[in-house]
Amino acid sequence: MTATPATPPAEPRPDGRADDELRPVRITRGWLDHAAGSVLVEFGSTKVLCVASASEGVPRWRKGSGLGWVTAEYAMLPGSTHTRSDRESVKGRIGGRTHEISRLIGRSLRSVVDYQALGENTIQLDCDVLQADGGTRTASITGAYVALADAITHLRSTGALKGEPLTGSVAAVSVGIVGGRPRLDLPYVEDVAAETDMNVVMTGDGRFVEVQGTAEGVPFDRAELDALLDLAAGGCADLTRLQQEALAQEVTRG
Amino acid sequence: MTATPATPPAEPRPDGRADDELRPVRITRGWLDHAAGSVLVEFGSTKVLCVASASEGVPRWRKGSGLGWVTAEYAMLPGSTHTRSDRESVKGRIGGRTHEISRLIGRSLRSVVDYQALGENTIQLDCDVLQADGGTRTASITGAYVALADAITHLRSTGALKGEPLTGSVAAVSVGIVGGRPRLDLPYVEDVAAETDMNVVMTGDGRFVEVQGTAEGVPFDRAELDALLDLAAGGCADLTRLQQEALAQEVTRG
Amino acid sequence: MTATPATPPAEPRPDGRADDELRPVRITRGWLDHAAGSVLVEFGSTKVLCVASASEGVPRWRKGSGLGWVTAEYAMLPGSTHTRSDRESVKGRIGGRTHEISRLIGRSLRSVVDYQALGENTIQLDCDVLQADGGTRTASITGAYVALADAITHLRSTGALKGEPLTGSVAAVSVGIVGGRPRLDLPYVEDVAAETDMNVVMTGDGRFVEVQGTAEGVPFDRAELDALLDLAAGGCADLTRLQQEALAQEVTRG
Amino acid sequence: MTATPATPPAEPRPDGRADDELRPVRITRGWLDHAAGSVLVEFGSTKVLCVASASEGVPRWRKGSGLGWVTAEYAMLPGSTHTRSDRESVKGRIGGRTHEISRLIGRSLRSVVDYQALGENTIQLDCDVLQADGGTRTASITGAYVALADAITHLRSTGALKGEPLTGSVAAVSVGIVGGRPRLDLPYVEDVAAETDMNVVMTGDGRFVEVQGTAEGVPFDRAELDALLDLAAGGCADLTRLQQEALAQEVTRG
Amino acid sequence: MTATPATPPAEPRPDGRADDELRPVRITRGWLDHAAGSVLVEFGSTKVLCVASASEGVPRWRKGSGLGWVTAEYAMLPGSTHTRSDRESVKGRIGGRTHEISRLIGRSLRSVVDYQALGENTIQLDCDVLQADGGTRTASITGAYVALADAITHLRSTGALKGEPLTGSVAAVSVGIVGGRPRLDLPYVEDVAAETDMNVVMTGDGRFVEVQGTAEGVPFDRAELDALLDLAAGGCADLTRLQQEALAQEVTRG
Amino acid sequence: MTATPATPPAEPRPDGRADDELRPVRITRGWLDHAAGSVLVEFGSTKVLCVASASEGVPRWRKGSGLGWVTAEYAMLPGSTHTRSDRESVKGRIGGRTHEISRLIGRSLRSVVDYQALGENTIQLDCDVLQADGGTRTASITGAYVALADAITHLRSTGALKGEPLTGSVAAVSVGIVGGRPRLDLPYVEDVAAETDMNVVMTGDGRFVEVQGTAEGVPFDRAELDALLDLAAGGCADLTRLQQEALAQEVTRG
Repeated sequence: MTATPATPPAEPRPDGRADDELRPVRITRGWLDHAAGSVLVEFGSTKVLCVASASEGVPRWRKGSGLGWVTAEYAMLPGSTHTRSDRESVKGRIGGRTHEISRLIGRSLRSVVDYQALGENTIQLDCDVLQADGGTRTASITGAYVALADAITHLRSTGALKGEPLTGSVAAVSVGIVGGRPRLDLPYVEDVAAETDMNVVMTGDGRFVEVQGTAEGVPFDRAELDALLDLAAGGCADLTRLQQEALAQEVTRG
Repeated sequence: MTATPATPPAEPRPDGRADDELRPVRITRGWLDHAAGSVLVEFGSTKVLCVASASEGVPRWRKGSGLGWVTAEYAMLPGSTHTRSDRESVKGRIGGRTHEISRLIGRSLRSVVDYQALGENTIQLDCDVLQADGGTRTASITGAYVALADAITHLRSTGALKGEPLTGSVAAVSVGIVGGRPRLDLPYVEDVAAETDMNVVMTGDGRFVEVQGTAEGVPFDRAELDALLDLAAGGCADLTRLQQEALAQEVTRG
Repeated sequence: MTATPATPPAEPRPDGRADDELRPVRITRGWLDHAAGSVLVEFGSTKVLCVASASEGVPRWRKGSGLGWVTAEYAMLPGSTHTRSDRESVKGRIGGRTHEISRLIGRSLRSVVDYQALGENTIQLDCDVLQADGGTRTASITGAYVALADAITHLRSTGALKGEPLTGSVAAVSVGIVGGRPRLDLPYVEDVAAETDMNVVMTGDGRFVEVQGTAEGVPFDRAELDALLDLAAGGCADLTRLQQEALAQEVTRG
Repeated sequence: MTATPATPPAEPRPDGRADDELRPVRITRGWLDHAAGSVLVEFGSTKVLCVASASEGVPRWRKGSGLGWVTAEYAMLPGSTHTRSDRESVKGRIGGRTHEISRLIGRSLRSVVDYQALGENTIQLDCDVLQADGGTRTASITGAYVALADAITHLRSTGALKGEPLTGSVAAVSVGIVGGRPRLDLPYVEDVAAETDMNVVMTGDGRFVEVQGTAEGVPFDRAELDALLDLAAGGCADLTRLQQEALAQEVTRG
Repeated sequence: MTATPATPPAEPRPDGRADDELRPVRITRGWLDHAAGSVLVEFGSTKVLCVASASEGVPRWRKGSGLGWVTAEYAMLPGSTHTRSDRESVKGRIGGRTHEISRLIGRSLRSVVDYQALGENTIQLDCDVLQADGGTRTASITGAYVALADAITHLRSTGALKGEPLTGSVAAVSVGIVGGRPRLDLPYVEDVAAETDMNVVMTGDGRFVEVQGTAEGVPFDRAELDALLDLAAGGCADLTRLQQEALAQEVTRG
Repeated sequence: MTATPATPPAEPRPDGRADDELRPVRITRGWLDHAAGSVLVEFGSTKVLCVASASEGVPRWRKGSGLGWVTAEYAMLPGSTHTRSDRESVKGRIGGRTHEISRLIGRSLRSVVDYQALGENTIQLDCDVLQADGGTRTASITGAYVALADAITHLRSTGALKGEPLTGSVAAVSVGIVGGRPRLDLPYVEDVAAETDMNVVMTGDGRFVEVQGTAEGVPFDRAELDALLDLAAGGCADLTRLQQEALAQEVTRG
């Protein structure tokens, strides 16, 4: 990590990590029996169940094109947060944040999919947050990629497709400026205290898919932005390696 | 189990169980870090996350009464079923089945609660089905009771209440007539094939809270009804014992 | 009626009936001019308008199967209750109770329909409560059966079907334990005071289609359950006779 | 009725009425047991149940003003029309026509109410069409006025108000040009064939509350408009007399 | 204007106009670049953007008939009113008033359209109120007619139709009784003070398409009604002339 | 602008601009009569009406804090796009994109507001797109800032606040990589062709409030990201100057 000029002296993080260190990450494949791909991904206390369902055919507007489709939905269970949140199905509306994150996950995964090779198949990713402790959207993307890879392997095993629809891998991490210091992979307590919050989605070969930075309090300057991008690049590289390790293992279902 | 006159010769169940035998049941307490009570309950492949959130105060219509309140919501994750089901939050409406089961769970738990002893506290139970293989409503009730008991212990530990709001325990099981034979705890494959399907909720001391029997195909007679009630009574007694064993253990969170 | 051991000495019912006696029941056929079948059914002060509309064709998921379909919707007019209730169309949502009862009515009627004989025709039953005084769902089922029978006669008269799609008749009644005594066909004042409330749907030949018993207060034991089932069987037999008498009469429309 | 220049030679109406003759009108008071006022009004085959519910207090925006409030909702039962129409509560939305008619009924009734004399009481009118054969909105207004009068008598009997909140009476009728001839009180078959359709709401002393004329096909000229207004004035005078006769009778509830 | 017997002595109007005088009217064609027709219409401070979008094909229920379709939607921007009003898309429901006006605009335009000549094309009119100062519905109709005429010219220029689908022109104006005097084209301050409010839609040749009069306070008599109709006829004739002038000019887009 | 290594030879833009040149920008203040602030902002053919409504008081969750609130809603008129889009109020739901942009505008404006100085006042910004030709969200932010400034001046003139709640200014611009070349302020035709699309919100003193970059096709590398940030910084500086010039002028309402 490149230090920024204004960085204050290091104050320990609540969980004792170094500023450029990820929380313990666990990626458990085959967590469910039925789904084409199902992954329980954990970034520290954040737990997200990512399920990939494959179906033949594509939405109406894409029929006959020979191209496949990948889409995603994100949601939080009511009991996943410190204080119980209302169920969106009961409210009868999906909130803006939920919509926004669902769209982000979908775009991120589609950036590494070759629709031609996927053929007229649809893969639907469902990312349901079982426990939220910061970084739920980045954990979702990171886990959903693994579930997607499993679903594609499954489609190949059933003969529904032949080639390789994945053009690369994708992972995501949050970074932020907390107490004046750029930090990687913020848990909830750091997230609410952050002056600037950024989510970065990168491919396995180190290019950017999404950069979403927001000044929560004070606007940030170019040097701070550069420091955050450096941190994120390091974190995504680590996550890419963890994805590869997970995908290299044998999986026993259920 | 009392045999009914018309019972055909025994044909083995798909999973090899005896007709009056439960599937393997697992009750994991403290599955989440934040909630007052959180239980992952498994009846075979059916997995339900039951989370109890406690909050001070009661709904407006109950304010000032000195009485508490217990309520429940049930939902299925989209990827929990064999074929992905649409997300109710996206459809913007809760289906009739979801409503019906939420109401059933709430009524079942309230049957063992002394509102006076609970005081003006509310406990909200969320039962989210992570994987569905039959019996999701009965697993939900059985697990939610344990989460409720943990939430009450938690409220006592914080000083929010003193006495014992639980007047007993509650558990539930499905029974049905499959291929002419009454059977306990039906998995999905038996459930779709059942001529009659019944869900029975009972207290730990063997009384009935709910009896919901439906002839899916041919109407059933009194002897069949009696046989099903006998089976359910045995199953609920077994589940009551498993609840007690789970509650007797030490729990390490997370 | 079989007496249960714990039955307290008889206290007169608010309307002077015996414990096993129905309220005055009136079934008026042909209440409307247009519908294939229309019945005003009255159980005491409870008045429900049951209208059966017949249409050619079936829902999309059933097309080409050669099989018919029967479905039902239940609703209460806002002014039907003692205190006006809000209109569900204005609230923009159907409540859980409404959903639940609509589903119950549909299932009950379908239990006596031979879809093959019905052919690809759909019969939609609408049960609208004009005045509610307890037992609205059981009056709905009892009246809807008669409207269904009229609709089928109508379809036969137009040549839309030839055989007999009805495999039997269906009727329903509520029973409950009030002041420790099992009682038949509860009006509103008894319903709110009941410790246990049960709705039983039976075929004309005395078999069960639905049994839905709920402990409103204290859970109930097997002896109480048996007493309630006995009462219900008697009540449904009486209702079956009244349905037959109604169907035996000539009807002048409107 | 003043003849218009262009009126073609008389062709008999489908039901044999004269052009300026109402259908048989029946106003049945006390049709329900609970409501403050309940009227079944019939204009030929059109049947509308008008229920007036009275409650203490007024909507929030009117609190403390000393003024009362009167409001109305209109709806059609699904089976009321020749071809079953979908239930608005199931669609989750009220259609434009329903909204429009509810607003019209409310405005019409409010035109004869003295809010000061009503005091902080609310009267809610529910007009539910049980059978529709043209003129449902005008029958609703005509019947709702009678239910409103009964509700006010009821409020006076309970001591909730003392004076006379009614400043007059209100009735309504449809008129239209069918086959070139102005006609009063159109049933469905004439309504769909009308070139111009007008609903007129008038007070008992012959003044206008609402005039809503629509050219369904060819625009209409001033002479035609005048002829329609003359017809409507005669019809409303007849309805006013029928309302007075109905209100003069003793009512036995239920 | 024909004076009514009871007319009180003239009191000046807030903006100094004569009782039978329109506000300054501006009709700006081609206000947008893309739409088939787009008109900014101003009646004094009231500003409505009327956009006509043309598309090939008709709604499903009209397919294969050879007939076209014209429909309209009306809405107010939140900031268009003196006090900001809530956005209907955020509330998730369209209010009754919005529905009612959308339907009125659609009917008014359809009264001058020959569907046969339009062929299977659909023209959708969107009338969005940018600033509201009374008369928004009448300005909408008046402006929408001009946008419709432009859209038809556009369709002819693309070869989508050949003949003349317009059978005439249509314009609308509000009239009302304010302080006992009939007045034309009411701005907001007069509208809220009016005892009677009437919207009149007329064809260019002086016939009526819609007459909607409402007694806001005291019911009105026939003489008052006649006076209002006279005023409206004069106003619509003026508006017709202004529409013709606008349509006679060359338009530079954007 | 710093050139990136891979930049291909310059190909002229569709409208002949230099790669780092804004479209003609017009900021018209006081476009409406009633609102505290109203601005018609144009970026080329993109036209957005930005209206700021001020009201005393704050949302419930902020009451008594002494702090103000600023919020925003964005919407597109149906006729604003090349092909008419459905009205969200009619669909009954706000789409994800609309939600996302509304939230972005709100956050951007709040970054330059001192809530303490604003006091318990709320300013609501409504950004309604009248014509869409790319960059609607960035035009909205840029225009909304000016409307906000006018609303604050208005509040000061009425005595509702005294100090200066604005801590700076904010403007926004889109940048993207089109045909391999980084370009500023993309119109629709370039937007749909862009490989990477980025919206950047900056303060008047050159710091970042939001950076939202998305790879629409091929992921982008760090050099491309840097080039885009440079372009955006230049564009925002130009827009800041145009905002200052607009705010320096006298405004005549309406």
